[in-house]
Amino acid sequence: MTASPTYGQLTNQGASTNIAWHHASVDRAARADQRGHRSAILWFTGLSGAGKSTLANAVNQALFERGLATYVLDGDNVRHGLCKDLGFSDADREENIRRIGEVAKLFLDSGVIVLTAFVSPFRADRDKARALVDDGDFIEVFCSADLGVCEERDTKGLYAKARAGEIKEFTGISSPYEAPESPELSVDTGAAALDACVEQVVNALIERGVIPAQS
Amino acid sequence: MTASPTYGQLTNQGASTNIAWHHASVDRAARADQRGHRSAILWFTGLSGAGKSTLANAVNQALFERGLATYVLDGDNVRHGLCKDLGFSDADREENIRRIGEVAKLFLDSGVIVLTAFVSPFRADRDKARALVDDGDFIEVFCSADLGVCEERDTKGLYAKARAGEIKEFTGISSPYEAPESPELSVDTGAAALDACVEQVVNALIERGVIPAQS
Repeated sequence: MTASPTYGQLTNQGASTNIAWHHASVDRAARADQRGHRSAILWFTGLSGAGKSTLANAVNQALFERGLATYVLDGDNVRHGLCKDLGFSDADREENIRRIGEVAKLFLDSGVIVLTAFVSPFRADRDKARALVDDGDFIEVFCSADLGVCEERDTKGLYAKARAGEIKEFTGISSPYEAPESPELSVDTGAAALDACVEQVVNALIERGVIPAQS
Repeated sequence: MTASPTYGQLTNQGASTNIAWHHASVDRAARADQRGHRSAILWFTGLSGAGKSTLANAVNQALFERGLATYVLDGDNVRHGLCKDLGFSDADREENIRRIGEVAKLFLDSGVIVLTAFVSPFRADRDKARALVDDGDFIEVFCSADLGVCEERDTKGLYAKARAGEIKEFTGISSPYEAPESPELSVDTGAAALDACVEQVVNALIERGVIPAQS
C-alpha cells in the first residue's frame, strides 16, 4: 500500500492510477491462479432417490480431500432458507431452480466448484440455468437410476406416499421427469457402486481441465 | 476407499459403517481447519456513496492477498441476477435483503468470508440477516460517511436525480436510512483514507479470531 487516497480522491482519480482498488482485481481467473483449479457448476439431476445428493456429497468429499474449494447446494440448505417462500407449483418449481442457478453462478464467480443436487425435472429450467454461464462452466450430471430402482429404494418413503395420493405432483409418479438429452455426464446411479460413480465424475473434471490430475 | 457400496446398500447400512460418505463430513469446521481461517459475514451498510462497495472490494483484495477464501456480494452481481425480479418498494427491498442474507449464510457455510455491500437501510431487515446465523458470524460494518459527504461525492449522479425528483424513494433524500445502533465496527468512510479503513476491518477480523495475524 503506497497511496492513501480518500474515497473522494479515489473516485476522482479513477482506477487507472490506483489499480489495486479496482473492483475486478480479484476475479475468477485470479482465484483459479491462486487455488490451482478452475471453478464449475456440477448440476446433478435425476429422480428422487436416484442418489443425487449422496453422489454430490461424495464427490464434494473427494474434492475436499484434494484441497479444492467446493460446495454442495441441496434441499437441506436451500429449501429451508433462500427458497422457503416457494412451494411445489410449476411456477414455484421454476423460480426455485432459477434462484439455485443464480446462486450457483455466484459460487462459480467466487472460484468454487459448486455441486447442485435437485430433482430439477424440467429440461427448460435446467437449460435456463445453463444459459446463465459460459460454455464449459455448466456440467450436467444425469443420475440415471430409473423409476423402478428409485421406487424400490424409496429412501425417504416418498414414493409410497405419492402412490397413496398423499403427495401431489410427485416427480416420476404424478409429474413428469424430463431426462437430459445430451448431459455432459451420465452416471449409472442405479447399478454402479458409489465410489465408481465418484471416480467417473472426478475424472470428468480432470479431463475437462477443471481440476489437475492428482500428483 | 475400501467398500464399494451401491446407493441402496449405503442407505441400509447408514452412515456409521461408511462414515466417509456422510453428508456432514465436509462442514465449516473442516474447511476452517484446511484453510486456516474461519468464515464470517461482513455486512457493510451505509448511504449510497458512503464507500461500501469500494471498501468491501478493497478488504476483499487484502484478504485475497493473504490467501484467504472470500467473496463480495453487491449490486453488480445480485441485483441483475438472483434479485432481478425485485424492484424498490418496501416489500421488494425487504425480500432483496432477505435473499442476500440467505446467500451470505450459504457462503458462510461454505467456509468463505463473504462481504455484502448494500445500502440495507432498515435496521429490522439487517437484524433478520443477523438472526440467520450464530453469534459472532455476523459482523456489521457501518460505513459512516454522512449525507453531506455522500451527496457532495455523488459518485453515480444519483443524489442529483433524487433531488430533481427523478428517483423516488431514494435513501437519505426521500426514504429513511436507519443507522446501526451498535454495529460490530464503525468505519469513518467520510474522512479516513481507504487503506486506513481496510486496515481497521482486517484488524477487527484478526482480533475476533476469524483470520490469523499475518506471519
